[in-house]
Amino acid sequence: METLTDKILTDTIRQRPADSYKGTYGRITLIGGNRNFGGAILMASAAAVYAGAGLVTTITDASNQGSLHARLPEAMFADITDFAQTQSLIKGTDVVVIGPGLGTDNQAQAVLANVFSAVTSEQTLVIDGSAITLVAQDHLSLPQAHLIFTPHQMEWQRLSGIAITDQTATANRASVDQLHATVVVKSHRTEIYTTDQTYVNPLGTPAQATGGMGDTLAGMIGGFVAQFHPTDPAVCAAVYSHSAIAEELAQTQYVVLPSQIAAALPTFMKQHEAMID
Amino acid sequence: METLTDKILTDTIRQRPADSYKGTYGRITLIGGNRNFGGAILMASAAAVYAGAGLVTTITDASNQGSLHARLPEAMFADITDFAQTQSLIKGTDVVVIGPGLGTDNQAQAVLANVFSAVTSEQTLVIDGSAITLVAQDHLSLPQAHLIFTPHQMEWQRLSGIAITDQTATANRASVDQLHATVVVKSHRTEIYTTDQTYVNPLGTPAQATGGMGDTLAGMIGGFVAQFHPTDPAVCAAVYSHSAIAEELAQTQYVVLPSQIAAALPTFMKQHEAMID
Amino acid sequence: METLTDKILTDTIRQRPADSYKGTYGRITLIGGNRNFGGAILMASAAAVYAGAGLVTTITDASNQGSLHARLPEAMFADITDFAQTQSLIKGTDVVVIGPGLGTDNQAQAVLANVFSAVTSEQTLVIDGSAITLVAQDHLSLPQAHLIFTPHQMEWQRLSGIAITDQTATANRASVDQLHATVVVKSHRTEIYTTDQTYVNPLGTPAQATGGMGDTLAGMIGGFVAQFHPTDPAVCAAVYSHSAIAEELAQTQYVVLPSQIAAALPTFMKQHEAMID
Amino acid sequence: METLTDKILTDTIRQRPADSYKGTYGRITLIGGNRNFGGAILMASAAAVYAGAGLVTTITDASNQGSLHARLPEAMFADITDFAQTQSLIKGTDVVVIGPGLGTDNQAQAVLANVFSAVTSEQTLVIDGSAITLVAQDHLSLPQAHLIFTPHQMEWQRLSGIAITDQTATANRASVDQLHATVVVKSHRTEIYTTDQTYVNPLGTPAQATGGMGDTLAGMIGGFVAQFHPTDPAVCAAVYSHSAIAEELAQTQYVVLPSQIAAALPTFMKQHEAMID
Repeated sequence: METLTDKILTDTIRQRPADSYKGTYGRITLIGGNRNFGGAILMASAAAVYAGAGLVTTITDASNQGSLHARLPEAMFADITDFAQTQSLIKGTDVVVIGPGLGTDNQAQAVLANVFSAVTSEQTLVIDGSAITLVAQDHLSLPQAHLIFTPHQMEWQRLSGIAITDQTATANRASVDQLHATVVVKSHRTEIYTTDQTYVNPLGTPAQATGGMGDTLAGMIGGFVAQFHPTDPAVCAAVYSHSAIAEELAQTQYVVLPSQIAAALPTFMKQHEAMID
Repeated sequence: METLTDKILTDTIRQRPADSYKGTYGRITLIGGNRNFGGAILMASAAAVYAGAGLVTTITDASNQGSLHARLPEAMFADITDFAQTQSLIKGTDVVVIGPGLGTDNQAQAVLANVFSAVTSEQTLVIDGSAITLVAQDHLSLPQAHLIFTPHQMEWQRLSGIAITDQTATANRASVDQLHATVVVKSHRTEIYTTDQTYVNPLGTPAQATGGMGDTLAGMIGGFVAQFHPTDPAVCAAVYSHSAIAEELAQTQYVVLPSQIAAALPTFMKQHEAMID
Repeated sequence: METLTDKILTDTIRQRPADSYKGTYGRITLIGGNRNFGGAILMASAAAVYAGAGLVTTITDASNQGSLHARLPEAMFADITDFAQTQSLIKGTDVVVIGPGLGTDNQAQAVLANVFSAVTSEQTLVIDGSAITLVAQDHLSLPQAHLIFTPHQMEWQRLSGIAITDQTATANRASVDQLHATVVVKSHRTEIYTTDQTYVNPLGTPAQATGGMGDTLAGMIGGFVAQFHPTDPAVCAAVYSHSAIAEELAQTQYVVLPSQIAAALPTFMKQHEAMID
Repeated sequence: METLTDKILTDTIRQRPADSYKGTYGRITLIGGNRNFGGAILMASAAAVYAGAGLVTTITDASNQGSLHARLPEAMFADITDFAQTQSLIKGTDVVVIGPGLGTDNQAQAVLANVFSAVTSEQTLVIDGSAITLVAQDHLSLPQAHLIFTPHQMEWQRLSGIAITDQTATANRASVDQLHATVVVKSHRTEIYTTDQTYVNPLGTPAQATGGMGDTLAGMIGGFVAQFHPTDPAVCAAVYSHSAIAEELAQTQYVVLPSQIAAALPTFMKQHEAMID
């Protein structure tokens, strides 16, 4: 298992070429936020925008439209019950993030099935939160796409069948290999399982132990993979950045709010970008 | 009567252990905010989040969903008219705060009765604002739970039957002993009556004399008791912190807004945390 | 005509006594904001809160409830179409501000008539914006209350019948004496006509020439007269403070936004409060 | 082709005369923002307000009313489906900006036709975003007004028929002359075609390559032409300022958010205003 260092940042966050436009930095569609959990998709969407994704669309419950734009006018909105529009929006996107605040009710199941039927093998699909629970519980077959799962340990237990206490690197690796996916197992020391390597994130602070941190990380991962290639180091850089920013803020704060991490991204990324020679 | 000092802060606000997660810091459910008083439950909820509670759910009038998430995406939302969902949410929570902006109409009465029927003896229930008035006015029998009342002097008169001018420590103590509750009597110099001790808060500034201060304190008390044990010093630390932050802000402000106190919590708590040896 | 100086600030903004509570600083009800002009009543309400009024209620179109609380959870909300609730709220208030964003349609007329029928001689009524136009246009008889009009020059022309070019101090004084009101004639150099004196505000900057400045001033006047007595110097101090803050901000800004003036109030007022000996 | 320098700023941004009022700085009406793209018109409107336009009205989908005022109480609101009110509002305005987030559906077409029928030759009409696409696609005849188009290269291709790779200064000039309009062709190095001159903007950073930048520029152009005359240098100064602010922010940020550019306008403009002798 390889321990991440800040080298992952300069390996990933490249100085932007002068002659680029918003399409260069990817189109990302985030799907989630039912009537109860709207804040989750708002936080994920903010993370994608502040990470620098070129174009961000948020598909969520209609009751979240106003609060989305009150916080984040940069994101476009679509109604999560409009399955045809969702299909159409996914066609034009590079990365899909599904799960933050999605819930697990019948509508959530239908949304997830619709998304799975729409994504293609050229796209990256980040599966987070309750979408992971639904995949596990309903034994869904996964779409042909570059898949990234971002479970916490209990969600990983549901998905892999490995009890939390048995989640060793070896056991996890066997399960990841079957999934044909990149898996980010979130914990005190988050582990990232890619196709050919396993990484551990040495950073993280208990000041991060508050609701919404995972939603923010999912949005950051989406924002990073939308603009940085190849995908696996981009995932690692997002995980590392999330904790590094939290540690910085925790120098002076007892608790770090997820929305503060998103807001800190543009400055943090500038400090760690690699210059083009 | 014991006068609180800043020792209550280091006795209470402990450095977070590295290996912890959001569940470690408690689940808290705040209930209130009718169509007229939505701001009250928003301020209470923000105080709980910024105090570091692990997971925060706000049960309020549906018309407050958008403004809640516009200010505080970290909080989850539920509709105050959905009594079954309220029952279910209370089952999974450690602390319930009821009252900020609840009002005293028929619906408020029904909400309160539903909450009282749901809480159990392992839970802490903070009863604030109009919920206190309802308890007094309707002679409600109180649920088996760790009860914390946070009346201002007029609400305490309603609840205890002691006129404001007669609210001496001795008279208050007799009434508190009958309630089997911790009682925070808010005034110029707030007093805290626990089972076996009485404390007085020496801090506070007239710059705090503005609407919403009590709602913010109720949310802070909820956030502190959700993560710090035992409960009584956590209540004392919340009261003391609320005034200490206000005094700091009042150095440069003629009036201190309640939402500014909530926002200052993460930094204040960091400055006063006790290090683990 | 007396030119105001910063002496009006220390004469008015007194150090708050330690043993005071929110009722000490007045209850204020602001009424306005139809579906088109909701921002006006939001700005006025924010000014009242940041000026330090004890309790602030905003009566406005139902469509403004969410944005009010998203910006200002400290304010309570009531629906402008609920005339009975408006009557009841006015009963318990010290100061009423009517006009910001009210409009001049039939509903606005009915709202104004309802408010005029509710206010009493112990209350202060600030009449601003389209409420002035309605008073002038419909020749409304004015209620028995301490009246403060805050017209700009065109509104003053409508109310007094004096053309803008004829608005000399002498002509204005004759008209003010008939109104039995304090009148703030807003212009490049605002004039304040009280019962027995006329003041001119020497401050003001063209950086203030933007929509919403008058709404903010109306809310500030309401907030000042709610807590500072007697009323006339409180009005003068509000006018002077509004321009003084704008001048400070205009040192570094080409345009000053009304909401920035409200936000600067707590610090400005602290810098200019008179110490109690 | 003339390369812009910061001389365009001092040539344009004049110290405000002391005796001026909000009407001096223009009335601007921004039209756009359907249910999906509400954020676009919010960003454009904020840019107009922060640029110093005297009075700003936003005509947009009713679902955007709350988020508009939550972010920007300074703007007035009107419902985009109320064509009579739109006609009336346009009558009283100096500048109209149409297009940000308008969309291209039937309703958008009807809105555009209504606006085109309402504007007069004394008014300036900024045509942005999907309004450009509609003009091109439906071969709309243009109204008699001072027209400013703000296409990106693909929209310019649609409007002019010139493929992106063929968009040379000579080809563009011929097409612009036929349009009888000022055209801002947005790209890595934006070009401005006025009636008698062509300018190129030497500034800009890839940190700007994110959704909403164009909406913000359209609002800035509207705000500049509302208050600065003649129009063509005002357009140039808006374009130059937009990039100059972005470059400043990009010193410390990997990505610059459009709403940050709007917020920075008052300070930037103050630094670059020309003093009146």
